[in-house]
Amino acid sequence: MAEATRAEVAAPLADLSRISLNQISINGWTLPEAVEGCARHGIGWIGLWRDKVADCGLERSARLVRDAGIRVSSLLRGGFFPAAGEEALRARRDDNRRAVDEAAILGTEILVLVCGPAVDRDLEAAREQVAEGIAELAPYAAESGVTLGIEPLHPMFAGDRSVIVTLAEASSIAERFPAGQVGVIVDAYHVWWDPDLRAQVQRAAGRILGYHVSDWLVPPPDPLLGRGMMGDGVIDLRLLRGLVEATGYQGPIEVEIFNRKIWDAPGDEVLALIKERSLAKV
Amino acid sequence: MAEATRAEVAAPLADLSRISLNQISINGWTLPEAVEGCARHGIGWIGLWRDKVADCGLERSARLVRDAGIRVSSLLRGGFFPAAGEEALRARRDDNRRAVDEAAILGTEILVLVCGPAVDRDLEAAREQVAEGIAELAPYAAESGVTLGIEPLHPMFAGDRSVIVTLAEASSIAERFPAGQVGVIVDAYHVWWDPDLRAQVQRAAGRILGYHVSDWLVPPPDPLLGRGMMGDGVIDLRLLRGLVEATGYQGPIEVEIFNRKIWDAPGDEVLALIKERSLAKV
Repeated sequence: MAEATRAEVAAPLADLSRISLNQISINGWTLPEAVEGCARHGIGWIGLWRDKVADCGLERSARLVRDAGIRVSSLLRGGFFPAAGEEALRARRDDNRRAVDEAAILGTEILVLVCGPAVDRDLEAAREQVAEGIAELAPYAAESGVTLGIEPLHPMFAGDRSVIVTLAEASSIAERFPAGQVGVIVDAYHVWWDPDLRAQVQRAAGRILGYHVSDWLVPPPDPLLGRGMMGDGVIDLRLLRGLVEATGYQGPIEVEIFNRKIWDAPGDEVLALIKERSLAKV
Repeated sequence: MAEATRAEVAAPLADLSRISLNQISINGWTLPEAVEGCARHGIGWIGLWRDKVADCGLERSARLVRDAGIRVSSLLRGGFFPAAGEEALRARRDDNRRAVDEAAILGTEILVLVCGPAVDRDLEAAREQVAEGIAELAPYAAESGVTLGIEPLHPMFAGDRSVIVTLAEASSIAERFPAGQVGVIVDAYHVWWDPDLRAQVQRAAGRILGYHVSDWLVPPPDPLLGRGMMGDGVIDLRLLRGLVEATGYQGPIEVEIFNRKIWDAPGDEVLALIKERSLAKV
């Protein structure tokens, strides 16, 4: 990289005040365990998953988080918009509205959207369905004070999880709506490879609703469960955070690691390592 | 997809005259076995890999292919340009020149480039090194009548195989050179997910040097060895071929499948299935 751009590299984090534990990183912990773990380790933010919230109970989850003084950086996840047939589309719509309601009750302003795959090989039609689904959901969410965060996934997930696989495309959809209604989530693992990354992060200024970190291992051990702990892979995390912060984003940094080995390790050890690597590598 | 665009979908292939067997699809076959297999099955094209050519001997490989009346659609592969230090860069340069020499001897005009990963997390610097390496190699190749085909790989390979992961970026480099010196290879597996695919294929008109097919399985079973037989996955192969042919490309269609299960199957069965699927699905 040219010398002139090195100034964009972020300085190390001064403390852990912006770090959020995305629940999936310690998948073995129930919601109460994760909340207690965050409190024990001085982590002030948590990213919640709907299945774990459901296991614990929605109202109880909201109370536990609130009583522990922990803020919810986001709820994961709504989306999966493309569907075959009216009935399936209606079921998705209803579920996404429930996700909005849950986000509001849990006290987070951000519902993360994983947009879903095509139903029939037709990516272009599926992308239209995503835009239509978001158009339907955004006003409903706005009424509850919930903003929708479109998370472009790595193109590796285009077949089974999301037809939205670039930040450019996420922004193209988000920009159809007021900034307070729809924005984007920048996840280092999903976007680090993009030759257009620098320009697309700049373009997303004012719409970045979340920043997620993990690392890209070489070679990737598994398509789904092969994300790495920060510092174990090849992503220039300091550069990417610098780019994100240059847009004005100073919100939570969610640590979101899907990794079988990390899941099998004791939660307290994982959280201690997350803290160490957040200061050293993020 | 909108009705109007359906006209872009290609008609089924009338015959197998454009199908090429990329050697990797039947990895268990030596070069002589692959050549014999193609002859036995009436496949008129083959894509050769340098390691298999080396195992057989360069001159002998050239003779076997020529005597069988089979044409070489491409040689795989040159590239891996980024390297740390002058000595490593010189070694890469020398090896790429040897690859050009081999292509000329084998009677193919196309050397496929897999551009290589970054050496130190710096994707932007690595991409510059790729462009510099190609600038160094292209005139040398032109003297031998060999054209360089930049193959963008799926972004899943950005960490270990290629920092060139979009057709847009491959074209941006190729366009710095005369069309007869540098072009691009469109591989369905690597590019199918791209929201900008339609425009980028059109942009590559006149520079498409090869078209490769396999399929994207859902969920992807393995990052490296999980490509599917055409028809087993979710790629709209007829649409993509239609887009490629709309640019004027009427050259060979290389079947390139990295798949452990297919590798473990008897070669003749695999080739029979390739023929069947080429007519039914490509």
